[in-house]
Formats: sequence, C-alpha cells, structure tokens
Amino acid sequence: MQRLSGFSVSRARDVKNALLFNSFHTQHTFSTAAAESTQESSVGRKFASYTIFKGKAALQAYPVLPKFCTTSSGFSRMEKNGVVMLVFWPAIGTRKYDWEKKQYFALSPTEVGSLVSLGPSDSCEFFHDPSMKSSAEGQIKKSLTIAPANGQSGYFANLSVMNNLTKTNERLTVAITKAEFAVLRTACSYVLPHIMGWDQVIGQEKQTQPKPVVDRPHPEFEWSR
Amino acid sequence: MQRLSGFSVSRARDVKNALLFNSFHTQHTFSTAAAESTQESSVGRKFASYTIFKGKAALQAYPVLPKFCTTSSGFSRMEKNGVVMLVFWPAIGTRKYDWEKKQYFALSPTEVGSLVSLGPSDSCEFFHDPSMKSSAEGQIKKSLTIAPANGQSGYFANLSVMNNLTKTNERLTVAITKAEFAVLRTACSYVLPHIMGWDQVIGQEKQTQPKPVVDRPHPEFEWSR
Amino acid sequence: MQRLSGFSVSRARDVKNALLFNSFHTQHTFSTAAAESTQESSVGRKFASYTIFKGKAALQAYPVLPKFCTTSSGFSRMEKNGVVMLVFWPAIGTRKYDWEKKQYFALSPTEVGSLVSLGPSDSCEFFHDPSMKSSAEGQIKKSLTIAPANGQSGYFANLSVMNNLTKTNERLTVAITKAEFAVLRTACSYVLPHIMGWDQVIGQEKQTQPKPVVDRPHPEFEWSR
Amino acid sequence: MQRLSGFSVSRARDVKNALLFNSFHTQHTFSTAAAESTQESSVGRKFASYTIFKGKAALQAYPVLPKFCTTSSGFSRMEKNGVVMLVFWPAIGTRKYDWEKKQYFALSPTEVGSLVSLGPSDSCEFFHDPSMKSSAEGQIKKSLTIAPANGQSGYFANLSVMNNLTKTNERLTVAITKAEFAVLRTACSYVLPHIMGWDQVIGQEKQTQPKPVVDRPHPEFEWSR
Repeated sequence: MQRLSGFSVSRARDVKNALLFNSFHTQHTFSTAAAESTQESSVGRKFASYTIFKGKAALQAYPVLPKFCTTSSGFSRMEKNGVVMLVFWPAIGTRKYDWEKKQYFALSPTEVGSLVSLGPSDSCEFFHDPSMKSSAEGQIKKSLTIAPANGQSGYFANLSVMNNLTKTNERLTVAITKAEFAVLRTACSYVLPHIMGWDQVIGQEKQTQPKPVVDRPHPEFEWSR
Repeated sequence: MQRLSGFSVSRARDVKNALLFNSFHTQHTFSTAAAESTQESSVGRKFASYTIFKGKAALQAYPVLPKFCTTSSGFSRMEKNGVVMLVFWPAIGTRKYDWEKKQYFALSPTEVGSLVSLGPSDSCEFFHDPSMKSSAEGQIKKSLTIAPANGQSGYFANLSVMNNLTKTNERLTVAITKAEFAVLRTACSYVLPHIMGWDQVIGQEKQTQPKPVVDRPHPEFEWSR
Repeated sequence: MQRLSGFSVSRARDVKNALLFNSFHTQHTFSTAAAESTQESSVGRKFASYTIFKGKAALQAYPVLPKFCTTSSGFSRMEKNGVVMLVFWPAIGTRKYDWEKKQYFALSPTEVGSLVSLGPSDSCEFFHDPSMKSSAEGQIKKSLTIAPANGQSGYFANLSVMNNLTKTNERLTVAITKAEFAVLRTACSYVLPHIMGWDQVIGQEKQTQPKPVVDRPHPEFEWSR
Repeated sequence: MQRLSGFSVSRARDVKNALLFNSFHTQHTFSTAAAESTQESSVGRKFASYTIFKGKAALQAYPVLPKFCTTSSGFSRMEKNGVVMLVFWPAIGTRKYDWEKKQYFALSPTEVGSLVSLGPSDSCEFFHDPSMKSSAEGQIKKSLTIAPANGQSGYFANLSVMNNLTKTNERLTVAITKAEFAVLRTACSYVLPHIMGWDQVIGQEKQTQPKPVVDRPHPEFEWSR
C-alpha cells in the first residue's frame, strides 16, 4: 500500500510474492523452534506488520507479545518481555529484495521507549550480542543506529552486523520519512504497554471484579509498612 | 452535534436526512461489490464517522479496517491495509449538501502518519490515481492538500479531482479548525494501529497464551542468526 | 483519593456521602428519562468519574457513550455522539458541597478536541443553549471558559449559567492544576474515539473478518469513481 | 531484558530469583489481606511490571486497578481509584538487591497526571502518610521526588521514608534514563484511564447498547436544567 513511494503494479506484485514467501519461511522457522505444536496452534493465528521499501533495503516492524508462565500457585506472571521486532533485508536490484539475507533486531521495551521519545534532531544507538548467553559471546555484534536525516526530514536507520567468524560486516540502511516515523512512533507507543504485559494485567483484573471478594493488591497496602 | 458551528434545528434535520440517504446509498454500493453476502452480514454491523460541515463543502472521516486472509496452513495474514476514508461533498445552497457529488480519498497508514505528525505550520500533499492498476491509468488524478490557515488557527483541506475524460476539475475545500483537527489527529492516532492490523496480532496472541506450548516468535529468535 | 489536596478523614467522608447521595439522585434522574426500563438495565452497569474538589466548587467529569440505532436493514449506525459530561457544584462551607445546585455541561467531540489541544497559554470558550430546540430558546445561556492561571501553573474552569426567567446568573469556578489537567487531557484523549463511536466500528469489524466473505467497504472503493 | 544496562547471565539470574521470591512474598502479603479467598481467585491471575535496576537501588512499577462495589440497586460504582504502584528496594552489593527492604509508593491518578506531564526540566514531589487514617498519623512520612538529571538526560527518582518511631530515615535513589522515563510515561498514560475506571464505564455501555431501551444518561440531559 506504499502509494507514496510510487510502486508500479508489477513491482508491487514482486514484493507481494516476496512477502508471501517470507511469511512461509518465517512460519517454517517458528516451526523449527516450536516443534510439532506450531502446525496445530497456527490455525487462526494472525500476522500483520508495517514495511518500508527503499532503494537499498527494506525494513519491517511487527509486535511480539510477552510470554507468561503459570506458577504452581495457579497465577501467571510475565516470564519474558515482548518486543518490537525489526527486520532488515537488502535490495538486490531495482525493486527486488532478498529476504534470505534478512537480519533481525528485537527492540526491548526500554529501546522502544528510546525510539518513541526521539526528538527531531536526536539519535540513538543500540548494541545486541546474539550469542550473549553462550560460549560464542562476542563473535557477532549487532548495532542499530537511528539518526536524523538532513533538514530534519526524517531519520536513517542503520543496522550493522559484524561477524568475527565469517569476517563479514553487513550494513543495511533504510531512510525513514517523517510520516513513516510517525507511523512507527504511534504504533510503537500503542504496542509498548502490550509488550510490557500491562494490558493483560488490566484485562484479567476486570474479569475478577464482579466477584464480591477483596483479593486485589490494595492501594492502601502502601500504608501497611 | 456541531453546536460550535451553530446549526439550527431544521438545518440539522436536512443534514440528517442527507446522511441517512447516504448511508443507504453507501450500503448499496458495498452490496454491488460484495454480492449477496452483504445483505446477510450487514446485520449487526456498525457505522460511525466524524463529519465537519462548512460553508462550501463537508468532510467526513471514518475508519476502514484491514482485511486478513486465511492461508492454506490455517493462519491468517493481513492482505490489505485498512485506511482512514475521507469523503468530501459540496454545498449546494445554504446548509444544503449534495451527497451525490461526493469524492472519496482513502488515507493509507503512512498518509495517516503524515496527518497526525503535522506541525501547526506544516502542510502535506498526497496524490492518488484511482485507475492506477488499469489501462485507464493517469486519466483521473486526485490530490489532497492540507495546509495551515492564516494565524495557525487550523488548516484547509483541499481535494482536487482532475478528470481527463470529462475534462473537469473539481475542487472541494473544507476549513478545519484547530479543535476539529485535534479530533482528527486523536482519532487517527487511535485508529492507526488498527488499520495496520497490529491490534489483531495482539488480541489473538493473548488467547493462545494460556496454552502451555511455545509457539510464538521468540524474542531471542534474533540471536539465532 | 485527593491526597494532594490534603483532605482529612472526616472531610473525605462528607464528600463520600455527598457522592453516594449524588449517585442515587443521578440514577433517579436517569430513571425519569428512561422510564421503567432503567431499573432493570442498571443491574451490572458501572459508574466512574474524575472529581476535583476545590475551595469554592467541585468539578466532576465522566464519559457518556454514543447511541447507536438499528436500521430496518439490520445494521446499526451512530444516532447521537457521546460526550464528556462535566458537572460543577458549589461549596457551601468548608469542605461541604451542595450537589443539589449542580450544573451540567456536556462536551461534544469537537469541544473535547479543543480541550485536549489546549496549549499552556491558550484559552477556549463554549456556549450552550439548553433550550435550543424548543420555544424557550435563548432563555438560559451557559458558557464554559477554560483559561490559563497565572504562571502557567494550570487553568481556571469557569461555568456561567444565565437564566432570563429567574433573572439569575450563577458562576462556578474551579482551579485545575497542571497535574489535574494532565489527567483530564489524557482521559479525554483516550475517550474521544469512544464517544465518536470509532471503537465500536473497529470492534465489530474484527468479529466479521473470520468469515470468508468480502463484505467490507473496500479501500479501493475510492478508485471506482 | 535489561540489555541496555549490560547485565550478564549470572546477574540476570540473581535478579530473576529475587523477583521470583518477591512474587511469592507479595502474593503472600495479599493473602494476608484477603484471607482465604485469594488462594482460589489467584488461579489464572496475571502479574507484569516494569523494573529498572541501577547501582544503588531498583524501581518497579505496575498498575493496580480500581475497585468497584455493587450497590443495592444492582449497579456498580467505583469505590476506590486504582494506582500505579512504585516499589523501591536497595542494592546490597554488586548487582544484588534486598527485596525485604522494599518500600511502596502508590501514585494516585492525579499524581500519575503529574508524572506524565513532566517537562524535561520540571520536577515534582509527593507526600504520603501511610498512617493518615489512624492514631499513628504523622509518625511515618514518605516523600517521592522526581527531578531532572544534569543535561536533561533523564530524572532522579528519590524516595525518602522518615520513621519517627524507629528514628530512621531511609533514602532510595534510582536514576531514570530518558528512554526509561519514556516507557514509564507511555505506560502510565495508557494505564491512567484504566485506574480511573473509565475503560470499564465504556466497556459495559457497549454491551447494553444492542438493547432497544433508552436507558443511558442522555447528552441532552444537560438541557433539562
């Protein structure tokens, strides 16, 4: 639907096919991680993202919700924050993109906070180590920089992936217009309380309120200390 | 409910009748596109919009949600973005409007982003070609300009429709006060994540979480590359 | 919970009793309008408001949702906008308020837009005629002014009710701190799409989407003209 | 998930265990207040928070919803505002925190309004007396100050608890980066209408609307006075 960026029909179809392929590929990758349960649980699941196609690369963003676990006491607590997943992949010709070379960068709630509070002349930089919890720590380094474009007309998002094993350093840059950044800012502000799990705390409380029991953390609880 | 703009009773009634008629007309048009299924599915459906009546024309805005399709694998993905639909129609006398001459302009998510990030002295312009995907491409050109009014008291929304076949050029202009623009900005910011489909990604995830399977795109998934 | 404004216990209790009484009184008034059906339908209904108690008067705000009507075709359309209802009532002694002298002022969506976009040194004024649609038009005039306090530390909300029949002119003024105004602004921004009915358009669309019929207003509909 | 602050694995685990313990402790405390009903009602309940770990102390925030009570007439009204609960607890070594020494500070809606409207060079201060409604009034004084850090790079949150009985004065200070404050601001803005109960007013109205009775507070109700 990138009418602004002037896609022609055939081009849009290429992109669409690419995305369709992506989607299956992505689904497959999830399957790898989730074993046989995915096939079943994907029935009825929904995917939606926001994608920006530019001359040298494309950028896609979508929300990933937090994960709750049920304790032995029967209540559930957030085990892992959600994220806003960013995917970059390079152009390999005029209006052709190579999804196979995609690179992921998962924004934590605090990184999303940094993004949504970015002033027109501010920039921010995040560093991730995908192997942080393994023996391979430090071998791959990712950094994402978001810096203002000239004349405050938007931003440049620059993802750099340095791989010490393959001695490669991939750089993917996507220009984000002011309007596109407003979409990201608005969507990320909307989604932030959801990746923090606060909407689920709120949703479930309401269901228990019709019950006449006093079982919630009492505001005056503060006073008891 | 445009008390601010001082409608009298009779006038408001004219408008109401016009809108009632519109609604049936609109419904009918949808039927044309959707065949016999509409009659049935319209039961229980809801319509709401925000309308600004001014001296020379009226402007109506309402959200249209994205469309998801179900894949053969059983999950569903957004097939088409939602939009914020703008409808302009001209005044044909004091407080009388001709709905038959209405013109549509569907704002994509990025165009909505442009609208909600508009500073008090900013302006924006969008170009649409309704025949873009057909042999008639270029014969009708629509452009929407939103530009600040004098003294930053609001904006002018100007829709121009140039038709090379009928050699006509219709222009419809509606002054939007600062308060009315705040309504549009707030409502469009609210609706943006919904026309992007992000609320549906979020809503359905929550339902699958009570299940003890690990079937979601894992934040650490980023690390696996 | 107005800890900031320093209520003592007994005072808070007075206020609570007053509000309890109010609530029943209000409920009763609604009954008058809604006949016997209210008694039944109030079961399970919920009331919540935000109230500011100040030296000379109190101000309460709460949302009132729009009203949809079902057409003969089976779909429903918004018949009447929702509002943010403001209620002012005077103090009649130290920390005592006379709810019987309450005055209502219902903010339309556009007036809410004016409120939420108010800059720190802006002011706004709204005029309502409660008898606008009757022979008594012009006999009672209400005006609400919201103007910045000295030093941009907040606003004064001033309600004036001029009654030509009783030759009275009541004025009720409540100082709103910057923090209290932030609550009103945030809550009103939140509630605006709801009093416009947009959340209901969005909510119901999602339910119809699992159906494999193409029955929604198509974004490309714009192109068909 | 505090990648930004550079936690190593073992450290993160310490924190996690601490939080797990916290959670049970917290749960237990709730049980004390809520007697036997909690055990049952906690099944299916959800907990989520946002936590900032810094060198000298940690700060956790989570929403607590308002409490509604059912009146004899069958409708329910908000009896007690929700809050945003802040919990501070001290570090007791490098990356070790003592949850046993936690201090609570419950932000009312107006205090949340103060927080979300804080400009980059503004500060605010709140005073709470946990014994305000008892004979022990004045013996414990809590104050929370949020003041800008040098160079507008964020804020310092400073909680002071003065206990006249034990002659102690505990001070807990947490530096909040600009990004972390954006998370708090966004999450608190999101949650504000919910702790005010406005979302519940809105949610329940929608359910009663399909009924063809006119039983809602009418906007024109204002005119009737």
